[in-house]
Order: sequence, then structure tokens, then C-alpha cells
Amino acid sequence: MALVEHVVDVSFGDCDPAGIVFYPNYFRWMDATFHRFLSERAGGHTRLCGQLGAKGIGLMEATLSFRLPVTEGERIIFRAAGIDWGGRSMTVRYEVDFDGKRVLEGRETRGVFVLREGRMVAVDVRDLQLALAL
Amino acid sequence: MALVEHVVDVSFGDCDPAGIVFYPNYFRWMDATFHRFLSERAGGHTRLCGQLGAKGIGLMEATLSFRLPVTEGERIIFRAAGIDWGGRSMTVRYEVDFDGKRVLEGRETRGVFVLREGRMVAVDVRDLQLALAL
Amino acid sequence: MALVEHVVDVSFGDCDPAGIVFYPNYFRWMDATFHRFLSERAGGHTRLCGQLGAKGIGLMEATLSFRLPVTEGERIIFRAAGIDWGGRSMTVRYEVDFDGKRVLEGRETRGVFVLREGRMVAVDVRDLQLALAL
Amino acid sequence: MALVEHVVDVSFGDCDPAGIVFYPNYFRWMDATFHRFLSERAGGHTRLCGQLGAKGIGLMEATLSFRLPVTEGERIIFRAAGIDWGGRSMTVRYEVDFDGKRVLEGRETRGVFVLREGRMVAVDVRDLQLALAL
Repeated sequence: MALVEHVVDVSFGDCDPAGIVFYPNYFRWMDATFHRFLSERAGGHTRLCGQLGAKGIGLMEATLSFRLPVTEGERIIFRAAGIDWGGRSMTVRYEVDFDGKRVLEGRETRGVFVLREGRMVAVDVRDLQLALAL
Repeated sequence: MALVEHVVDVSFGDCDPAGIVFYPNYFRWMDATFHRFLSERAGGHTRLCGQLGAKGIGLMEATLSFRLPVTEGERIIFRAAGIDWGGRSMTVRYEVDFDGKRVLEGRETRGVFVLREGRMVAVDVRDLQLALAL
Repeated sequence: MALVEHVVDVSFGDCDPAGIVFYPNYFRWMDATFHRFLSERAGGHTRLCGQLGAKGIGLMEATLSFRLPVTEGERIIFRAAGIDWGGRSMTVRYEVDFDGKRVLEGRETRGVFVLREGRMVAVDVRDLQLALAL
Repeated sequence: MALVEHVVDVSFGDCDPAGIVFYPNYFRWMDATFHRFLSERAGGHTRLCGQLGAKGIGLMEATLSFRLPVTEGERIIFRAAGIDWGGRSMTVRYEVDFDGKRVLEGRETRGVFVLREGRMVAVDVRDLQLALAL
């Protein structure tokens, strides 16, 4: 079962002159899927950062593989399929389907960043894992 | 009754460093509301343009008035409240609410553009009005 | 003479399936022109807000008139042509040219917003006018 | 020496509530860097596709690693550092610097897509390599 689901109805303006989704939009929707997850599990990014004493749950790496093109009017579903926990990072795996077919697969690696002596550093993600009840 | 409704869940990434929606996103969502309307009434922009022999149903003017700020996690509803028909243009009026309060009001003036002797010209919108059954 | 100039090279991904600029992008660039102006005149939005004791210099209304379509590879120039000062608002007028031809005209009405008793209110813009040396 | 350079002045609206660049914007700028390259080498995507008989030079995978956060007012430089040629794909490597420091590294894997019996298929990229004089 997915950790969270985010439905996107692709609009005319999400597409490029080739008539298919302009690919940075997929990253926008992947990020929105993550924030929906934070919202459902922990009251959102702001509240969670307050709880963790963090500045942000920020990106270290983001990747998408594009399997099939998506066009205007299609409804695609983003799902966070699972999380791999590292020491100072977590990697969320995403699957995106249209009409039962896999169109994308993605991954976001994120850290919990705190300000230490004027620099942002990634700290242990165990507290995040507990806060998300995972 | 609204001509069409478009629900938007505002995400973290839709907001700016002041923590409120970065305003061009509202225009993106207003445009998506219009395209949802075309989709529901006439099978979408591509099909409608084919039917009308047009290159596009393009913008002549777009305006938004901002009454109240909107932040992450809020669900806002875009409604096309009505259309004023001119000779070679139509103006769609939009209302946007959050939790029963009016947050925005907007207007898009659009024309039906065809290619004539290498130039895009706006033609009579009567055929569009008929195609949309209005 | 323009108050500020902002050059934009239109890219493939800025355009929609009709092959012309997806219109919300123009508002993004108009906003960037305003922030470039704040940066040149007053060290940017953050610093200026600190100086004015304000939460933000936010939008009340934004309008664009579209005269000619713009496509991939074209270089357009945004210029803030002038500012009309009201009591609690200012209106910046923009002109956008491509290759010596006017392609857009726009307007942003903005206020200086401060937090008073939990509500954002627009205050007198005279201090802003002084800070911008206008 | 870089294959192409693309300068980006980060604006207020490119940043999120944490005050740093909203990460999908980096993918938008990476894509713009690629299209600038096509423009300089082969007259742009449309012309190149015409020459190759292709529908598009589309994405198979895109990745960014985020090393340092970037904020409003900073000027970052995207460079295409090199291309690795496969049989039916090419991978462009990107480096992004701010003030002499590496802030991002990225990769786009793209194919040359043609329409065959109603399906988009990736073909040999040798003709693309020749067209780009690489």
C-alpha cells in the first residue's frame, strides 16, 4: 500500500510545444506528493520542522525516469511507494501511473537540515522517522 | 451556478519566501480552470480548435485582484462565474474562494485566432459560443 | 527612460502546445522585473521590508494585455516604464518589446503590508517611495 | 571547455517558503541550458527534429544532486560539461556554479524519438551526434 497518493489532472499549460508534459512539472508534482505526505502524517513541513528543531527537510538528490509520455487531459496518480532510511538521509521511492500503466518512476533523497555555526548541516534522520510513525 | 469548478490544494512549492502563494501560480490555475471548462463542454482545446478551424483560443488580456493571501495546505476553489460575449472576444469572469471567503477575482479575455495570410487574426466568437452551448 | 530592464530569452519549455509562451510565465517575468528593481534601488525585498517594518510588498492586482504572440528562441525585454503612487498602493506600468515591437503591456498594483493585531493591512506607501528614491 | 553556458539570476519567486530555490526550477533551467545548446549548434529543437525526421529529443531520465542551497539575488551558471553517447540515448552532464563554488550537478538522458506504427520509439542517436558536430 502506498504511503500517500496525489492525483494530478494534466492541463494544457503543463505541456510543451511537443504536446507532452514539460518534464520539470513532474518534479513539482513529486514534491507536492511528499508535502501531502508530511501534511497527513505530521501536520505539514512547518510544524514538523518546529518539532525537529530543523530549518527544512531538504533535497540532496532527485531523479525521474520517464517511461511513457503524458498529454493534456490525462489523470496521473503519484504514489510514494516506500522509504529507505539512511543515517543522515532518507530516500522516498515514487511510482506514477496513468490508466493502470506505469509512466514514471522517481526518487527523492532528503535530509533534515539544521543551522550549526552559520552552516546548514544534515543530522540523523531517526527523529524524523519517529515523527512520521514509520 | 458556476460554469465550471476547479479545486486546487496549495502546496509548499506554490508559495514564495513570504510564505504565501507566488502570484503567477494563480494565473496558471485560472488557465487550468478555463481548459477544464473546454474539456467538459467541447472535448478540449485541440478538438474545439479543429471544429472551429482555429489555431488557438488565445489570451488578449488577463487580470487578477488579490483580496486575501493564501498559504500552504489550503484548498481553494476556482469558479468560472460567467462569460461576457463581444464581437471578436469573450471575457470569462472567475471567483476564487477559500473556506467560504472570497480570496481572488479574475478575468480572462480571449479570442478565436485563425491564420490569415501569415498573420494571426481574431475572428467572430459566435461559432465558439455555439460550440460551448452557451 | 525605464526604471529597470529585464531581458528574457524564451525557452522551449516556456511555451505551450500551441508553440507560444504559456501566459502565466509572463507574470513570472513581470514579477522578476519588479524584484530586480527593488534589488537595484534598495538591496532587495528582504532588506527593504526590514527597513520599512513590513511583512511584504505584495500584490493587490496584476494585469497583462497580450498584443503579439512570442515563441521559442525570441529575446524579449521587460521594462518598468513608470509608477503611479496612490495613498496605500502603487501601480507599476510595464512595457515588453521584442525586436522593437510592443508585444505586451502590464500593470502591477502593490501595497506595503504590515501585521496589525493578527491581520495584514496595507499602510501608506510614502516611506516606500522615499526608500526607492522616487 | 563547456559545450554551452546558461546564466540564471535567481529571483524572489523562484524560491520557496524556506527562502531557497524551489528545486523543480533547477530542472527547468537545466532543460533551458540544453535547448540553448541545440539553438547554438543546430538552429533549435524544431529545426533539428525536422532535419532528423524526429518528433522530439525527449527525456528518458533526469537527475540533480544538490550540494549547496541557492537564494534570491544569486547568479548561478549552468554548464553542459560533456555528453556520453549510447546506442539509442545520449547523457548530458551538467555542472552548476555560484561564485566559483559547485552548487549542483545534474544529468539528462535523452533519446531521439520517432513515430512508428502509432508508437514513439527511440532510434540510433548517431545522426543527432553528427548534426551537433560532436
